[in-house]
Amino acid sequence: MNIAPCIALKVNLITLTTDFGPGEYVATMKGVILSIAEDARILDVSHTVQPQDIEQGAYVLYSALPYFREGVHVGVIDPEVGTDRKGIIVECDDHYLVGPDNGLLIPAARKLGLKRVIEIENPEYMLKSVSSTFHGRDVFAPVAAHISLGVDPEEIGKVLDEWVDMDFGIYRARGKELKGRVLHVDSFGNLITNIPAEVVLEKYTFGQKTEMRIAGKRVTVPFLATYSQLDDRGVLLTISSSGFLEVAANRGSAAADLGAKRGSEIQINPAR
Amino acid sequence: MNIAPCIALKVNLITLTTDFGPGEYVATMKGVILSIAEDARILDVSHTVQPQDIEQGAYVLYSALPYFREGVHVGVIDPEVGTDRKGIIVECDDHYLVGPDNGLLIPAARKLGLKRVIEIENPEYMLKSVSSTFHGRDVFAPVAAHISLGVDPEEIGKVLDEWVDMDFGIYRARGKELKGRVLHVDSFGNLITNIPAEVVLEKYTFGQKTEMRIAGKRVTVPFLATYSQLDDRGVLLTISSSGFLEVAANRGSAAADLGAKRGSEIQINPAR
Amino acid sequence: MNIAPCIALKVNLITLTTDFGPGEYVATMKGVILSIAEDARILDVSHTVQPQDIEQGAYVLYSALPYFREGVHVGVIDPEVGTDRKGIIVECDDHYLVGPDNGLLIPAARKLGLKRVIEIENPEYMLKSVSSTFHGRDVFAPVAAHISLGVDPEEIGKVLDEWVDMDFGIYRARGKELKGRVLHVDSFGNLITNIPAEVVLEKYTFGQKTEMRIAGKRVTVPFLATYSQLDDRGVLLTISSSGFLEVAANRGSAAADLGAKRGSEIQINPAR
Repeated sequence: MNIAPCIALKVNLITLTTDFGPGEYVATMKGVILSIAEDARILDVSHTVQPQDIEQGAYVLYSALPYFREGVHVGVIDPEVGTDRKGIIVECDDHYLVGPDNGLLIPAARKLGLKRVIEIENPEYMLKSVSSTFHGRDVFAPVAAHISLGVDPEEIGKVLDEWVDMDFGIYRARGKELKGRVLHVDSFGNLITNIPAEVVLEKYTFGQKTEMRIAGKRVTVPFLATYSQLDDRGVLLTISSSGFLEVAANRGSAAADLGAKRGSEIQINPAR
Repeated sequence: MNIAPCIALKVNLITLTTDFGPGEYVATMKGVILSIAEDARILDVSHTVQPQDIEQGAYVLYSALPYFREGVHVGVIDPEVGTDRKGIIVECDDHYLVGPDNGLLIPAARKLGLKRVIEIENPEYMLKSVSSTFHGRDVFAPVAAHISLGVDPEEIGKVLDEWVDMDFGIYRARGKELKGRVLHVDSFGNLITNIPAEVVLEKYTFGQKTEMRIAGKRVTVPFLATYSQLDDRGVLLTISSSGFLEVAANRGSAAADLGAKRGSEIQINPAR
Repeated sequence: MNIAPCIALKVNLITLTTDFGPGEYVATMKGVILSIAEDARILDVSHTVQPQDIEQGAYVLYSALPYFREGVHVGVIDPEVGTDRKGIIVECDDHYLVGPDNGLLIPAARKLGLKRVIEIENPEYMLKSVSSTFHGRDVFAPVAAHISLGVDPEEIGKVLDEWVDMDFGIYRARGKELKGRVLHVDSFGNLITNIPAEVVLEKYTFGQKTEMRIAGKRVTVPFLATYSQLDDRGVLLTISSSGFLEVAANRGSAAADLGAKRGSEIQINPAR
């Protein structure tokens, strides 16, 4: 007796993260993907990364991708497009990341279980005509679409031994003194630093007052579990939802209040 | 003879409305939803509500949701996240609304046929680790995903007798004089007030000149069916597509021209 | 023996391009579409066209739509909504465009193979109550949804012999001198002109220095294949990914650096 195989519908999620702004550039990438993989589900992670800010893009991918169970994730913050910088596929457990070889994809990939890095070489998996200025559309979108259809990355290029690495920079803990810098300013003006939550929670307890130096200012602020534990408007320290020390303002913008921005150095000590 | 049942594909629409800006916070909510309900269709209503402006969020939900036939609608404008404010599910005819118990969901829910309000209590329907600062991701997204899969809200918590209410504030009609205030400024700079269309249309007819006081100014403006009935650039009154009195500018921004904003008081009388 | 036909799932792509900003207006259009065509796939092209800038909207559609294999494309930049301007369906090879008869849809339609233009007349395919200010929601969204379900456009209205035309304006080539104007400023501040790539490439070669006049300035800039061929920050000429002469800045904004904007005139000559 023959039994027809029950084939599960393959749901193919492709996410997009760029510095293109929401608009026509992203739309052309989606058109290219759907022309190759018509059942792909496409989801925007962010298109408001600051233009050409690779590190901020890396943070966005790092903070968002672990909440997806699986997916092909395209990241395009690509100031060197059209030069000899490589394009890569990073294979992880249940995830593929696709984009330029400039460090952008690496922190997220490492968190997702980086298995191998493949250089994109085979023009059969790109658009017929590849422009010098828009590999998001001409290379990375079609490659992601083909991967979502089950193409083996080794069909697309060769495994690399080396690639451009990135981490979120050095923070320093000496006794209770913590030093680091601002990785990302979110849409509320919260400042997310590169100091991991576990380091902070070893040395400080919620409710404790701290002395913070940032952007040329020295202020005493409480370390609190959440924003509204501050009775009135004002600045506080907390743990970001992505697991880092965060400078926030209750019902306001810490970035505006403190004049701080991405890259600003921060130092905290217990208040006397 | 056995007949295999033909099971219809259940299309589950989940909409999202937040003040998070488009970006990584919204994306993590989508990742969480798809990890639980992989076939959910997710649709953004708005992520550009002014930070922590509950009333504006309530207006956005109220004006958009009635155009959906069914859905699970997550709303997160949540300045009190991490305190003891409740999380709720509001059950309506063919719709569920999920978010904080701060009034945000109520005007829309009432328009959709509010049936009952359930407090979110059961941690089985939340992420394993619930942060203090991001219940959109850790509580409301997973609860919405489970509801879209058919989980009975009473599995998730208990029915409430009381909840935080909200309406769009008092407008006053005395003879032909109408007084109210600006509920929302849209992306064109149109000012949508809380004075319902039916009240205006009882007292004024299209083409009529009115005297308007707003933001310390007193101007004579026509009440017109649509923007371009004004021959040149300039301010006019009309009926918003959501059914309220609207102050608009033909080919311009009424908000900029008048220096008015959300909350500004408005008074209109027939012009002499 | 009877064989039940295997009917393929019809995937119906509907794209949206407006000047509404991302938010509740676009969401109501999506709600209307899904209420009629519940399996429609809806994709945003852009909602950040400058308010009421028909030509910029036309450029966005022209640059994005050719990357889609098929689709029903709604475009709403509609300053004359509520007047007697017509609504139209433009039928092309594998594509339908839906929107106001103000030129917006025509350059893209011509590129996609314009076959015929149909006036939208039949109220059966609109919402029951059509507002004077929001035909995107009340007319164009429902018409697009019905077309995606296979409704013949001639059911919706009559074929037109004339419609409002648009092209991207005159550029002039005299010897090596090229004159044109800025069609679009993208999210990086790149200035996309109306001078076609093929005209530029006939007269100039990559690496060549040019003298550019724009926005009252006269500067010597190189014509390069891509941004980062310039060693340092600075302005350059290149070919846009949509196939026009583009003024760009390596790691910066050409619009800000030059004080140029949409509509600015540009002239280039070989540098002496």
